[in-house]
Amino acid sequence: MVEHHDENVVHLDPAASPESMAERLAGLHPADIAASLERVEVEMVTRVLRQLDQETAGDVLVNLDEHTRAEVLAILNAPEIAGVAGELESDDAADVIGALEEPKRDAVLAKLEEDDRKVVEDLLQYTDESAGGIMTSEFVYVDQDARVDDAIAVIREAADELDEIHNVYVTDRDRRLRGVISLRTLVLAQPGARVEDLMEPDVVTVSADMDQEDVAEVFRKYDLVAIPVVDPDGTLAGRITVDDIMDVMYEEAEEDISIMAGTREEEFHEDSALRVSRIRLPWLVVGALGGLGSATVMNFYRLSLEKVLALAFFVPVITAMGGNVGLQTSTIIVRSMRTDRRLVGETRQRLLREWRVAITNAIILGGAIYLIVGLWFGDWRLAAVVGGSLAAVILVAATLGTVMPFALRRIGIDPAVAQGPFVTTLNDIIGILVYLGLASTFIERLG
Amino acid sequence: MVEHHDENVVHLDPAASPESMAERLAGLHPADIAASLERVEVEMVTRVLRQLDQETAGDVLVNLDEHTRAEVLAILNAPEIAGVAGELESDDAADVIGALEEPKRDAVLAKLEEDDRKVVEDLLQYTDESAGGIMTSEFVYVDQDARVDDAIAVIREAADELDEIHNVYVTDRDRRLRGVISLRTLVLAQPGARVEDLMEPDVVTVSADMDQEDVAEVFRKYDLVAIPVVDPDGTLAGRITVDDIMDVMYEEAEEDISIMAGTREEEFHEDSALRVSRIRLPWLVVGALGGLGSATVMNFYRLSLEKVLALAFFVPVITAMGGNVGLQTSTIIVRSMRTDRRLVGETRQRLLREWRVAITNAIILGGAIYLIVGLWFGDWRLAAVVGGSLAAVILVAATLGTVMPFALRRIGIDPAVAQGPFVTTLNDIIGILVYLGLASTFIERLG
Repeated sequence: MVEHHDENVVHLDPAASPESMAERLAGLHPADIAASLERVEVEMVTRVLRQLDQETAGDVLVNLDEHTRAEVLAILNAPEIAGVAGELESDDAADVIGALEEPKRDAVLAKLEEDDRKVVEDLLQYTDESAGGIMTSEFVYVDQDARVDDAIAVIREAADELDEIHNVYVTDRDRRLRGVISLRTLVLAQPGARVEDLMEPDVVTVSADMDQEDVAEVFRKYDLVAIPVVDPDGTLAGRITVDDIMDVMYEEAEEDISIMAGTREEEFHEDSALRVSRIRLPWLVVGALGGLGSATVMNFYRLSLEKVLALAFFVPVITAMGGNVGLQTSTIIVRSMRTDRRLVGETRQRLLREWRVAITNAIILGGAIYLIVGLWFGDWRLAAVVGGSLAAVILVAATLGTVMPFALRRIGIDPAVAQGPFVTTLNDIIGILVYLGLASTFIERLG
Repeated sequence: MVEHHDENVVHLDPAASPESMAERLAGLHPADIAASLERVEVEMVTRVLRQLDQETAGDVLVNLDEHTRAEVLAILNAPEIAGVAGELESDDAADVIGALEEPKRDAVLAKLEEDDRKVVEDLLQYTDESAGGIMTSEFVYVDQDARVDDAIAVIREAADELDEIHNVYVTDRDRRLRGVISLRTLVLAQPGARVEDLMEPDVVTVSADMDQEDVAEVFRKYDLVAIPVVDPDGTLAGRITVDDIMDVMYEEAEEDISIMAGTREEEFHEDSALRVSRIRLPWLVVGALGGLGSATVMNFYRLSLEKVLALAFFVPVITAMGGNVGLQTSTIIVRSMRTDRRLVGETRQRLLREWRVAITNAIILGGAIYLIVGLWFGDWRLAAVVGGSLAAVILVAATLGTVMPFALRRIGIDPAVAQGPFVTTLNDIIGILVYLGLASTFIERLG
């Protein structure tokens, strides 16, 4: 019995032969075989896969991390890949084949059996992150006139090919979805009962072009383990299972965090410092350019800074505040855009709410900084300039943080980008501009 | 047929009576009823719930967002809550009752039926974020000597109480887990076959004290829809289903993003600007205090700044770089800690890798800034100070970003905190300290 998921990872001797490695791994869950192999050289992973039967090899391949899988696929030849892909469910086969470069992809497709090729080619037409991109073409369905024992016969026939059967779909003669029967209902039903009398006619379905993140929301909302994908005319096109949805949820969370942190999960499997650096540099360059923008602004106001050097001391307060307020605001807007469709077109309402919050924070923080700077430097004019600009910067950052996600979405860019470095950097520059602009006006006016 | 999850949300007339609202909502999925009610005053939500039958009311209550649910529970009296909780599965009942304040919690427990009370009290002993905290006590199991028709009889008996049955667990006389049979196997089996001959003896299990995030990793790794929770002696204690795991994945992702962005999902349901402000202020205060720390450092080096004002211009470059490098590094460390247990105790190895990346970035970015500042100001000494300190700040930030998550974990704090405001703020101050420290030494030496 498996007690803990990491105890099943086998520590392989890197000097062992592929035959002996395959022997040590025999009988493990494909996910554990994959995890064990991720610590071995890619050449050796490929040789071990060749020792396994095609079905196991396929399941292991699917469980390898994307990076190792790509390297293994580069080594395997087209007939080998076709052999393994032929044993996979269609969505996994499409993922494997879709990841190949052009000449090799066609070569693999040509080696597949006629039926498999058609199915995979169909699935490859959908974009990666849509319901079509994660659905399988394998599912169990019966005609609405069928009886329970017909349904069981269909399951028996399909059981070899399908890893998971949760439901049997009920269709009319044109394969339009009419209802669904759970296995639990079938287990308890009389063999002669009509499926139409037992089926649940209210089925939650999705269309093939729905974004995978929205599909995940549907699963989570209705507590589903599988969902049918239907064409616009109601024809059953495919099925999505919850195991793929867990992967979608994981990937989407990774993606959000990557955007915010300026790095990517790919890094995990990267040992070359240069290549990791190439992943991280763009974000750092954006930050550096923003910093240089700020330097330009400060250079522009150098006369004021020369007059009152202490103004420079509070630049970090201003930039920290602009960045933080902007990030808080854009994060809330982006998250609520995802979970709540009402937000579409409600920019103005959100802006009012965010302004009310920003005004509250501006009064509290601006006031606190006014007192601190005043007491510290004994210069209440400086205190007024710093406190006042901080309040202004909070308002500006909240406005940018609200407007940016909506603006990005309108021009077809993922609003999550507003949580990334561009907006923070923009907020830094605008914050310093507001701060020194106000300060120099103030200083000139009052001499 | 349901085509899209948002089309099922009913827009209720706020002036309507609770009876007519209940009528409009009748027949909808509880998740849709909950979503429709979230747009109505809490008082009214409670009155509508009283119109529904207890089972539906319970399912709707569980589907309400946490905030609305807490308000509804504050209005409902103990017998009402007990009536609704009695219809729920034990994990949901425990969640509802566990959220109550002390005198009310006991009153509700006292109103439950003897059996239900014992089960809920048992579940309440587990911490919220453990396997025990998300498991149900309802599951289907048979003795290893049973036959297929016995198993079907057990399912028939349980079918009323359980929403989802994916598997039947097989136990010995002391209720120790021996194996599992999927419904699919049961559907295809002969009624007289022995379950012991059909069961899968290798079962992935978890213990009740496992962290819910680790349980989610087990589900995702092995593509599970349900997992048995066992006591240390192998006794079956409960079952976790994938719908709860999807909620865990969602919550954990939210939590990570909240830590990074300095805000919380609670905000979504909060209209009061003051209360939203109270959620966001602590993070802003940390940033402001950090900014004041930076101001103190700059004040300390004011003589150098008076001599070379341009030094101040590059403070934003230094703080942006320190913050970004620190965040990239700590994010990668925290993420890889989660997915890869090998990292435990490998601080030194990670540090070496991060340093190699940091040195690469330091050379590239330090060199670029050296050139830019030199060409811009025609002052190559200033250029050397800014470029050199930037390189030093990158190394320091990478070190902090690597060491902090390990240090936090060692003292029992969630390493994810290292992605939050404290570390970024610390990096700001240390960055400016390094920068101005190096600069002033340089300026004094070279006159």
